[in-house]
Formats: sequence, C-alpha cells, structure tokens
Amino acid sequence: MATDHEIVQREENAVDGGEVAGRDYADPAPQPFLGAGELRRWSLYRAAIAEFVATLLFLYVTVVTVIGHKRLQQEEEDGGVGLLGVAWAFGGMIFLLVYCTAGISGGHVNPAVTFGMLLARKVTLLRAALYVAAQCLGAVCGVGLVRALNSTHFARHGGGANLVDAGYSKGDGLAAEVVGTFVLVYTVFSATDAKRSARDSHIPVLAPLPIGFAVFVVHLATIPITGTSINPARSFGAAVIYNQATAWNDQWIFWVGPLIGAAIATLYHEHVLRASALKARE
Amino acid sequence: MATDHEIVQREENAVDGGEVAGRDYADPAPQPFLGAGELRRWSLYRAAIAEFVATLLFLYVTVVTVIGHKRLQQEEEDGGVGLLGVAWAFGGMIFLLVYCTAGISGGHVNPAVTFGMLLARKVTLLRAALYVAAQCLGAVCGVGLVRALNSTHFARHGGGANLVDAGYSKGDGLAAEVVGTFVLVYTVFSATDAKRSARDSHIPVLAPLPIGFAVFVVHLATIPITGTSINPARSFGAAVIYNQATAWNDQWIFWVGPLIGAAIATLYHEHVLRASALKARE
Amino acid sequence: MATDHEIVQREENAVDGGEVAGRDYADPAPQPFLGAGELRRWSLYRAAIAEFVATLLFLYVTVVTVIGHKRLQQEEEDGGVGLLGVAWAFGGMIFLLVYCTAGISGGHVNPAVTFGMLLARKVTLLRAALYVAAQCLGAVCGVGLVRALNSTHFARHGGGANLVDAGYSKGDGLAAEVVGTFVLVYTVFSATDAKRSARDSHIPVLAPLPIGFAVFVVHLATIPITGTSINPARSFGAAVIYNQATAWNDQWIFWVGPLIGAAIATLYHEHVLRASALKARE
Amino acid sequence: MATDHEIVQREENAVDGGEVAGRDYADPAPQPFLGAGELRRWSLYRAAIAEFVATLLFLYVTVVTVIGHKRLQQEEEDGGVGLLGVAWAFGGMIFLLVYCTAGISGGHVNPAVTFGMLLARKVTLLRAALYVAAQCLGAVCGVGLVRALNSTHFARHGGGANLVDAGYSKGDGLAAEVVGTFVLVYTVFSATDAKRSARDSHIPVLAPLPIGFAVFVVHLATIPITGTSINPARSFGAAVIYNQATAWNDQWIFWVGPLIGAAIATLYHEHVLRASALKARE
Repeated sequence: MATDHEIVQREENAVDGGEVAGRDYADPAPQPFLGAGELRRWSLYRAAIAEFVATLLFLYVTVVTVIGHKRLQQEEEDGGVGLLGVAWAFGGMIFLLVYCTAGISGGHVNPAVTFGMLLARKVTLLRAALYVAAQCLGAVCGVGLVRALNSTHFARHGGGANLVDAGYSKGDGLAAEVVGTFVLVYTVFSATDAKRSARDSHIPVLAPLPIGFAVFVVHLATIPITGTSINPARSFGAAVIYNQATAWNDQWIFWVGPLIGAAIATLYHEHVLRASALKARE
Repeated sequence: MATDHEIVQREENAVDGGEVAGRDYADPAPQPFLGAGELRRWSLYRAAIAEFVATLLFLYVTVVTVIGHKRLQQEEEDGGVGLLGVAWAFGGMIFLLVYCTAGISGGHVNPAVTFGMLLARKVTLLRAALYVAAQCLGAVCGVGLVRALNSTHFARHGGGANLVDAGYSKGDGLAAEVVGTFVLVYTVFSATDAKRSARDSHIPVLAPLPIGFAVFVVHLATIPITGTSINPARSFGAAVIYNQATAWNDQWIFWVGPLIGAAIATLYHEHVLRASALKARE
Repeated sequence: MATDHEIVQREENAVDGGEVAGRDYADPAPQPFLGAGELRRWSLYRAAIAEFVATLLFLYVTVVTVIGHKRLQQEEEDGGVGLLGVAWAFGGMIFLLVYCTAGISGGHVNPAVTFGMLLARKVTLLRAALYVAAQCLGAVCGVGLVRALNSTHFARHGGGANLVDAGYSKGDGLAAEVVGTFVLVYTVFSATDAKRSARDSHIPVLAPLPIGFAVFVVHLATIPITGTSINPARSFGAAVIYNQATAWNDQWIFWVGPLIGAAIATLYHEHVLRASALKARE
Repeated sequence: MATDHEIVQREENAVDGGEVAGRDYADPAPQPFLGAGELRRWSLYRAAIAEFVATLLFLYVTVVTVIGHKRLQQEEEDGGVGLLGVAWAFGGMIFLLVYCTAGISGGHVNPAVTFGMLLARKVTLLRAALYVAAQCLGAVCGVGLVRALNSTHFARHGGGANLVDAGYSKGDGLAAEVVGTFVLVYTVFSATDAKRSARDSHIPVLAPLPIGFAVFVVHLATIPITGTSINPARSFGAAVIYNQATAWNDQWIFWVGPLIGAAIATLYHEHVLRASALKARE
C-alpha cells in the first residue's frame, strides 16, 4: 500500500517530529467561539442526548460497583471486586462509552474534557455549555438510579461520593485531581491529534483504549486519596443524590482540580508539542 | 491513503454527526421478517452450530470459574480468582467468542442480542428462533459438562445459577438486568453500525473488545445483586442443570429483564441516534 | 476505500457465511506432509530458535510469578498477585510472545498448537517436530532459570508443576485439559483463518490479543483443577526441573489432554466451519 | 485492497520468514553515531521535553499507587489495589505513555530502551544522552511530586524505591532485572521492526499494547524479588527522593541489570532474528 520510500520517510518524520517542508496533514480549522449557527442542527441535540445517556450509564455502573464492593468487603472477608475492580469499572466504562459515542458527540462524558476541547477551539462555547449541562444532568440521573435500586445500601456505603481521605489535606486532594486530569486530557489530545491521524490513519481505532486506561491507572493511584474524580460531573451527580455535608464541602476540589488539569494539558499539547498547529491559526 | 481534504471532511462529519448532503455510507437493506428462504442454506445451520458451540464454551468456562472461585474462597483464605476474576471470565469469553464467531453467525451467543437484532431487522425471525434454541441448548450442555466434571463441587457451590441476592428485592434485580443488558446491546449496536463501518473501515477489528468489556463491567457492578445474567441462555442453562427451586423461582427475571433492556437499546439506537437509517426503510 | 456497494456486499457475505458464487479469498495451498525441502533454509532454524527463546521466556516469567504468588500468600496475608495475577501472567505472556514471534515462526509456543497446525496441513511434519523439540527444550531451560534464581523457594512452592488437584479425579483433569485446549486452538484457527483475513485485512493485527485472552480465561477456570497446562511443553519443562514423582505421575494427562483438544478443534474448524476449504484440497 | 495472490504470497512469506528474492521492505538507514547535526532542531528538544514529562507522569502515578497500596494493606485488611493493581499501574502507564509520545520522541520513557535503540543505531549518541538525562530528571521530579503530596506516607511506605528482597541474593536480583529487561526490549524491537511494519502496515497501531503488557507481566513476576525496575530512571528517581542507604546500596543493580538485558535483546534481534538487516548496513 505504502511504498518503501514512504515508509522510510514516515519513520524519519517520526524521528524529527514531522517538521519537514511539506506537511502531510492539515489541522482542522478552529471552531467559531460562540457557535450560534449550530443551534439549528438536530445533530447538536442528538450529541447532547448521547452525552446525557453516556454519563448516566457511566455513573450508574461505577457507583453500583462501588456500593457492591463496600458492602461485600464489610459483610464477608475477601468478598467483593476490590479497589482494583472499582478502578476497572471506571476505566472500562470510559473505554466503551468513548468508543460508542465518539462518532455522535466526540465522546467526552466529562466536563473537564469538554473544557479542554473548548480551550483548544475544537468545540464552540454553546456546544460546550450544552454538553456540560447534559453531563451533569446525566450524572445526577445515573446516581439517582443507583439510589432507587436500593437506598439503604446506597446511604450506608457512601453513595459513591468523592471525599478527600482523612490522611490527606485539601491541598493534597486538589493536587491529585490536577495531575490525574492532566494525564487523562493529555491522553485525549494525543489520541485525537489531527497530525497523528493523518500520518497513521488507523490510530482512531485504538483511541478509546488508551483513554480508558488513563482513567483506570489514575483510579489505581488516587482512589486512596480522593476516591478519584478527574470528572466534575461524576462528583456533582454523587453529591446531589447523596446530599450530605461531607460530599458538598469538598465539591469545589472536584471542579477546580479537573479544570486546572485540563487547562494545563491543553497548554502543554498546543504550545509545546504542537506549537506549529497554533501558529497556523493566527 | 486519505487526502488531507478527506480527513478534514471526515472530522467535520464527526462533529456535525454526518448529516451532510451526500452520505458516505449505505444502510444494509432490512432483512425479510420471516426469512423462510434461508432454510435451504447450509450457512444458516452452520451459524446455528457455531452459536451452540460458542454458548457451550461460554457456560463451561465461566461456570467452572465460578465454582472454583467459591470452593477456594471457602477452603483457603484469599485463595481463588475473586469476583474480579469471575467478571474477567465472563467478559473475556464474550470477547473471544464474538471475535471467533462474528464471521460465521454474527457472534450473538446471547438471546437478548439476537432479540435486539431481530427488532432492528438485522436477522429474520426464523434465524433468530434457531439461534435462541441453539444458545439455550448450548448453555444446558455447557453447564452439564461442568456438573459431569465434578458433581459434588457443582452442587455445593450453587451450580453457577443466577439468583437475586437476599439484600435486594425482585424489582431491584429486574431493574439491574434491564440496565445491564441496555449497556451490552447499546455497545453491540454502536460497534456494528453500518454508518460507522463505512466512515472508518477498521472499526470492525476492535468491535469484539468493547463488547467483551461491556460484559465485564456489568458483571463488576451487578454480581452482588443478581450474579449478573444479561443473557437468558446463561441463566436457563444453569437452572436446568442445577435444578433447584431457588434457581427456577427467579428465572423469569433473567428473561424479562434482558429482553426489555435489549428492546430499549434498540429503540435508542434506531430512533434517536440513527433516526435517518429508520426513515430510509419506510 | 471500499465503496458502498462493497461494504453492503461484505455484510451480506457475513450473514450468509460467504457462500456466494465468486469467492473473495484463496485458501493457501496445504503444506507438503514431510517437508524435507525446508531443511536447507535458514528461516526454518531461525523459527526454531524463536520458538525456543519464546517458550523459555514464557516458562521463566510464569513460573517466577507462580512461585512469588505462593511465597507471599504464605508469608503475609493478602500479599501476592493472587490466582488472578497468575492467570494474567500466562495470558499476557502468550499475547506478547505470539505478537513478537508470529512473523518469524507463526508464534506457536505450544506443542498442542503445532499439532493442530500439522493436522490442518499448515506446517510440515519436519517443521512440527523441530518446533516441539525447541519448545520442550526452551521450557526446560526457562524453568531451570527459575530454579537457578532461588532453588529453596522453587522447591518449597511446587516448582510450577502441573498436578491434578486432590478434589478432582484424573479423568476430571484430563477432561478439563481437553476442553481448555479446544478453546485455545479454536481461537487460534479463528484468528488466522485465510478467509477471514481476506475479507477483513486488518484482522491479523488483533489476532494475538484473543489468543492471549483464551489462555487467560482458561487459567481462570482450571487453575483450581490442574493448575492449567493446555501446553505439553509447559508441563514437561516444570516436571523435568522440579523432578518429583507427583509431577511425573500426572504428566501423561498434560500431553494426552491438550493433543486431543487440539485435534477436536482442528476437526471442528476444518470439517464444520470451513468444510469448503477442505474440499478445495482434494 | 490486497489481491488474493498478494495475500497468499504474504502468508508464504510468513512461513519461510520472508527470505524471498525481492524484499518488500526497506530497513531505514542507520542513524549517524554522534548526531551533532540534530542539535539545531527544535524537534530534538521537544522530544526531550516529551520524555521528561512522560517519565515524570510515569513515576508519579506508579509511586502514588505503590504508596496507597502499602498504606491500605496495613490499615485495613484487603483494602488496597493489591500487587496486581500495582503491576497494572506500571504496565498501563507505559502503554499510554508509549502511545502518547511515540510520534514525538519514539516513546522510550526508559534509559534501557534508549540504550537498546542506540546499540541498534536507531538513535544518535547525543539524542540518547539527552533522553537519558530528561528521563532521570523527570523521574526525580515525579517522585518529588509524590513526596510533596504527603511526605509522611511517602517515608513510611518505602518511597517506591527498588530493593532486592531479603529472600534473594544480589545476584538473583541482578539476574531478574536482566531477563525482565530482555523481555521488554525484545518486545519493543519486535513491535517496531521495519520489516514487520512494511508487511503489515497496521502493526504500529497495536505496538504500545504489547509493550505495556511486557511491563505488566514482568512486574507480576519480579515485584516479589526486586520490586521490579527494568528501568534505571525509575530506580534512580525513587532513590534520589527517598534517599535512604538501603535504596542507594542496590542502585547499581538497577542500572547494570537493565542495560545488560537491553544489550542482549538488541543482539538477539539484530544478529539472530534480523541478520539480513545488519548485513544491509555494512
């Protein structure tokens, strides 16, 4: 398919970062900032519905897993899926939801990802606002479904809410959320980079897998610190339905941390790794 | 391979949901409802044999895993593969069976998936009926093989049967099965969507992986509630061979729940996400 | 790349099993039975070296994992990687060794796989014999390396040898090995089918992953029964180095079981799923 | 895309190792040894920055996971992610970091990999030196971030430092590091082989996955022996920040072992598996 020369060329590009005279890819034009023109398209609302349903399923499956894990850990020794199983639930759901909704909405399922995409001018402000609203509403409904299933277990085992562990300060929790979200959003940018897609057109196939793994490994690391949010909608939905002071007191951490982490990842990707992409825009 | 312009175009399609004037894909014509014409083809019976063998292997491997897990958990502390290992057995088997049988039968291995495909007019009624019969027979034989291996362990450790946990009501169990099957069948539709395949021709390669992950994460979530069926043949096979009143009493939940979940997922995919595909049919 | 018509055609093929008039693939010619002609080629010996090294690494990593798991389970509660970790070591190693050696030797790393390939006329008798010798020698060296590392731990924790668990009869163990190897070899045939590769040229990319998962899930199921062999070289290598009567007494089970399982999988694939491929040969 | 004849041809190539008269691939020209010419290119420094950031994130996520695992294992029974979770953190992070940085720097994130690439003339000496410096600095900063998060937990739970376990001699630890790094670097060479990429142009897509799995399975095997380094920067960063005599005493093992393992893997790949590639160079 590709000739020998092309393959050698491609490898050289990989080595010197692709800064050859003739670029073999085109950065998509940045989206308009506001984007009022989109408001007349059914596809915008369909995307918002897809984000709503995906975030609902995300919270439902993961919070049911958390509640079941805590209940069995208390009732019978060695009984539940363990923290490792909980981390797989979060990472596995993101893998399959990004896979399922990528073609409809871009597969954000997370206001921090939407925020990064807005900063990088990949989505308009109106689309971003609609997505975040859909994600938060979906998260509330997903956790509500868990409580509807069994409100006793739900309340007794913490309702899936994010809290900073007693062994850590608020600042530790905030820092953990910043770096964890950086890992996630950096992976999202790397996986969906136009330059990369152009050079190796099969990359999108695998993209949801590293994104799911990013969520998985960050949960392995920081469940003992904050329970791991890296997704404001996830913390918001659990706080609304659990509705205890403890969950609300730390809520700001799970908005400020992820948004800062997403912003730094966007800056790193746009201004360091892809400085030329930025220049093309001006 | 793809030119710059094509790639940019493809990305724009992804953003506005592909509602451009010229569609770049064709939905396959819906299957005839009854499908008597297929009855003369060897490929139909080969597909049924493949479904039978796949469901047999699915039940054999997963129920052996469940029995071994329960036996070691009882005999020696921290000894078995844990609930996480059980969830991997179910998800891993579906991943590889869908991978192996996709080209022969479509890789359903589950009456709920076959039901969704029938509703979406992807298979005929006769094919669906034959598949469900083959799946149920395969499941009975698979669990029978586990009992043949060692009937003492089999009977002592619950025979892999699905039951609603004492901590939950029948309604909770039914709801858990509905939502769990929705996650699975929604993933199946997303992974095998004609529009998606056309736009990104490599998608089918990865399709069995998210389907396997869907089964895996739903098991992480609902093993503590119903043991997780989301597959009527799986519950039926275990009930026939285990044959205790407890397994039969809850059996209806593992047919009604998955079929409702599959129907809702079909409606969501066909009428919300792919409304245009439906219109083309009328 | 593919036109709409081709895609629709391909889907129809998938439904009716590809039995259309014009076949879009060619089965490779069967290999000569003996294959003395290969003996003059360096590539044959390089393939044998690759099988030797891969089986050595396979046994080294997996048996070190088994010994470490048993030692930590004994010394400190909840300390080791667990049976789930052991199953991942076997499945993960097969995934990456098949990935690494597929282009050099076909990536068998297992006499049962080589036997199935011989029955299906994918390899010659001389190549098969050389591979099995290389695999057995590699396995002995791999386990030898583990004992060299620390012979005390090695002897105390069973040397990674396969034994039928006291809770099961020899017949149970044999049956478990037959079915387990069937799952593995059936997956290997499905993943490397010429018809499938022709229809979807990207399938080979993913092939090592389901093969690794097959090994993983079979270990989840049957570690509590036989420790899981499904690979005569693996059991042979451990028996030679551990060299206790217990390991030798059951050794026949780990040759007879896998070879029968591989033979049945070959028959199923060649005579049921791919009956036409067989006809073309006569 | 490929014709029947091409596919058959390709399979025959796979069987006889590709030693046909007309080769269908070209080995990239070896890099100049010193490579001073690169010093004027921004892409070199960007690659070094990417290696710095990736190694920082690698150490941060994995050491936080180790600390959290040890803390919860001590505080509450069955509480943490377990050694299996720790192994997944290392393997999962390498998977996604290789995926994210492959197009920028080649995705080494490990001085042993850089050393193997230097020996194989895939990178220049100057580039290798810059990478190793960036990796070591990144590792120090990553572990520093973990200590900044909570210095009490960090010091109490060993700071993520690599030590040879009391049950093993220094020689055992060295051998474990040599073989473990061989597994990793052998996988890296197999996954990035030019011959393989030419024959099957989609291979690069999956390459980060087996590389991540190599790291995962080696951790499963040797965490109980050395904690597993197979990456000198990882051990160096932890030793600098933890800064206890125990960590410094064994430090040489985690440089000598990985570098020997990488050198043997390079020799095996270049002189045995790809002897012809070497000849082309002279």
